[in-house]
Amino acid sequence: MSQTAPSFIPARPFAPAERDAVYRAIHERRDMRHFSGGQVSDEALERLLQAAHHAPSVGFMQPWRFIRIRDRQRRRAIHALVEQERQATAQALGERADEFMRIKLEGILDCAELLAVALPPGRQAHIFGRRTMPEMDLASAACAIQNMWLAARAEGLGMGWVSVFDPAALGALLQLPEGSRPIALLCLGPVPGYYPQPMLAEAGWAKRLPLRDMCMDEVWQAG
Amino acid sequence: MSQTAPSFIPARPFAPAERDAVYRAIHERRDMRHFSGGQVSDEALERLLQAAHHAPSVGFMQPWRFIRIRDRQRRRAIHALVEQERQATAQALGERADEFMRIKLEGILDCAELLAVALPPGRQAHIFGRRTMPEMDLASAACAIQNMWLAARAEGLGMGWVSVFDPAALGALLQLPEGSRPIALLCLGPVPGYYPQPMLAEAGWAKRLPLRDMCMDEVWQAG
Repeated sequence: MSQTAPSFIPARPFAPAERDAVYRAIHERRDMRHFSGGQVSDEALERLLQAAHHAPSVGFMQPWRFIRIRDRQRRRAIHALVEQERQATAQALGERADEFMRIKLEGILDCAELLAVALPPGRQAHIFGRRTMPEMDLASAACAIQNMWLAARAEGLGMGWVSVFDPAALGALLQLPEGSRPIALLCLGPVPGYYPQPMLAEAGWAKRLPLRDMCMDEVWQAG
Repeated sequence: MSQTAPSFIPARPFAPAERDAVYRAIHERRDMRHFSGGQVSDEALERLLQAAHHAPSVGFMQPWRFIRIRDRQRRRAIHALVEQERQATAQALGERADEFMRIKLEGILDCAELLAVALPPGRQAHIFGRRTMPEMDLASAACAIQNMWLAARAEGLGMGWVSVFDPAALGALLQLPEGSRPIALLCLGPVPGYYPQPMLAEAGWAKRLPLRDMCMDEVWQAG
């Protein structure tokens, strides 16, 4: 059967300085938890959200929704939810509980902008690329968040992705409809600086694994 | 309780040309299904995998594993699996089946490099940021793939994420251990050019939604 014949724009590599800038954003992006208040301009926020919205999505379903939270009282309620789950995680961690409790997890009360990201209802109607892999909607939304993260780094802003919450409780607080699901609280805004390496590496929680341990040939290799 | 006091590197925005390069990669990245054979140099592949490996990950768990498939027979077996799921999806789509079958989904047999991405076993040990949100491992791996996608665009290469497969069948073919799960087949390599807009938009399958429809204030808003 004949398939759509596309038109193309030329596949040329970026100029070296442009390419380096892309890698710089990738390598200097950090999951930030320290914020210094301030503001994100409307123009910068629009650029970041457009970056998110230009992520790839399975079957082009664009399964990302952004809720901008400016009400201080709602912010405090969200912070309380996160604090509750932080305590529950610490308890579940057992012997690493104290170490965990010393790590700063989020900047919900200090960041210039707080955004919740949710998957919309009605996703079951989309089976293109998802019939056997329904979780690809989350994967697409994660790509959108990663775009935003890299764009934030280029803008000199910081972003943090907080997933320390009970999704049902957060969904209720955000009045999400049946079938919708929160996947992220994004803390965004000016920061005092970026961590030289991931904060959990700085804090000694975990180390970056060697790339070679991530890579295999042909089939899975144990060890 | 006192929290880790970090050191910082200065939070300065990128120079305008650098910032533009990051946005250019974000806006010109495409999910490619047309490839023109050729090769990816070892150096470029290493840069792409390092880009992936520098993605954020929940609790710094780095839940991405890459399997490079070079054996032609294995590639054909993978292609056959995808073709099987393509037919099953078409059947499930009903009235859009013919339209779906006219769309090119993948370039598995034509791309220079085929990589499978899998989540490793043992993920249940990681509860930092995942106690209530276990799917955050997939979200992290998706961020890694998005990094790779943007880096590929900067390198003048194309990449496509194929999720049209039965994960159990693909897992068996790749000899994934119990508890591991395949999430992507990545087609990577030189391309004849990039689609001016997402191929599913070009093909009339779906349209890009207005950004304003993705954004809400304070709580979910219907419509």
